[in-house]
Amino acid sequence: MEAPFSGDTDECREALIVVPVLHQMQLSGNCYKVRLAARQLGVELTLKDYGLLDGATRKLDFLAKNPNGRVPVLEFEDGRRLAESDAILWYLSEDTFLLPADRWGRAEVLQWMFFEQYSHEPYIAVARFWLRFAPQEDLEKRRHLIPEWHAKGHAALAVMQVHLARHDWFAGGRYSIADIALYGYTHCAADGGFDLAAYPAVGAWLKRVASLRGHVPLEVTW
Amino acid sequence: MEAPFSGDTDECREALIVVPVLHQMQLSGNCYKVRLAARQLGVELTLKDYGLLDGATRKLDFLAKNPNGRVPVLEFEDGRRLAESDAILWYLSEDTFLLPADRWGRAEVLQWMFFEQYSHEPYIAVARFWLRFAPQEDLEKRRHLIPEWHAKGHAALAVMQVHLARHDWFAGGRYSIADIALYGYTHCAADGGFDLAAYPAVGAWLKRVASLRGHVPLEVTW
Repeated sequence: MEAPFSGDTDECREALIVVPVLHQMQLSGNCYKVRLAARQLGVELTLKDYGLLDGATRKLDFLAKNPNGRVPVLEFEDGRRLAESDAILWYLSEDTFLLPADRWGRAEVLQWMFFEQYSHEPYIAVARFWLRFAPQEDLEKRRHLIPEWHAKGHAALAVMQVHLARHDWFAGGRYSIADIALYGYTHCAADGGFDLAAYPAVGAWLKRVASLRGHVPLEVTW
Repeated sequence: MEAPFSGDTDECREALIVVPVLHQMQLSGNCYKVRLAARQLGVELTLKDYGLLDGATRKLDFLAKNPNGRVPVLEFEDGRRLAESDAILWYLSEDTFLLPADRWGRAEVLQWMFFEQYSHEPYIAVARFWLRFAPQEDLEKRRHLIPEWHAKGHAALAVMQVHLARHDWFAGGRYSIADIALYGYTHCAADGGFDLAAYPAVGAWLKRVASLRGHVPLEVTW
């Protein structure tokens, strides 16, 4: 009688052990970035979903995983945990085709990922959350903030347009995790009331990213 | 007659060429991070100062350097420019004692640097700017925002306290650019009305950082 996984026992056991868990929300652009990069890199992830509106990431058992109370968190079987979407992207992509091999290219990647988290996400992702997904009564309390979200979000899109009018990609002259980081919420900016028609180079870049091998839309899960 | 720089001519010329310019504001914690890392790494920088309140970084000639209109920007003699304080820290510290040599340690560095830019700086640095440096009439227009700055800034300090209660440093078990990034605005959080007495591990870490070889305070310039 043959043993299960005959001939592959060690490899199978290893594969079971090393598949990390991505604590995530399916609708979050920050979590989508990680799923997209993992798919293109051939990295397996087990998805563990949390609700967008139920406060699950502010409860004690989740705070033990990330005291900052946010997804995504990548968790390994040995207990190591990594938070912050762009740090996870970096970890997954070191020494792969998604990260430039030269020091200057890597610095450009980080420049755009920090731009994304400081100057883009707080307006474009936040407008999307409140306008598209939050309960109406909660949106009403924040309606006075919409003009600021839109002004600063449009400023970020204008910075992207300036760059993309002269470059196909954000960093290192090639597709990288900098593009993935910025694609995460730019491709669904309309959810937050942003019209991208004024940014033709951004629109062309969105199409380039979506046409790449292994690309998956935000809705895809497993 | 001896030539100037006799015997060292090539080295001196090389040194003159490679010293990059840091476009900066002396009082900015984001710019201070870069100065501090450069001092500890022995990297020479030429400082070019901009006013904190005169809008100089939103004028056309500066926007040609950084379309996002912010300092710091590191500019090289060949025209390459790098924005975002934490991307500059990374660029300066690759393959040095300020960045862990292992992949997981580098990922931890980035986790804390993204935490700093997303969950810490927008409240602790912003409160400092408006409460300490902005004209009184401009502060008055934003006085209703102070409770939010303080609530979210204290949340960030609490996350730091949780980590520092069990670790001496933020990433990789050693002093790194993650510590420099978080030191930048934490050490002057009192300027924004934050009392650090409730975060003893944060206070002890501030002292550890300040006691290291090559440490320079925010005021030091050259």
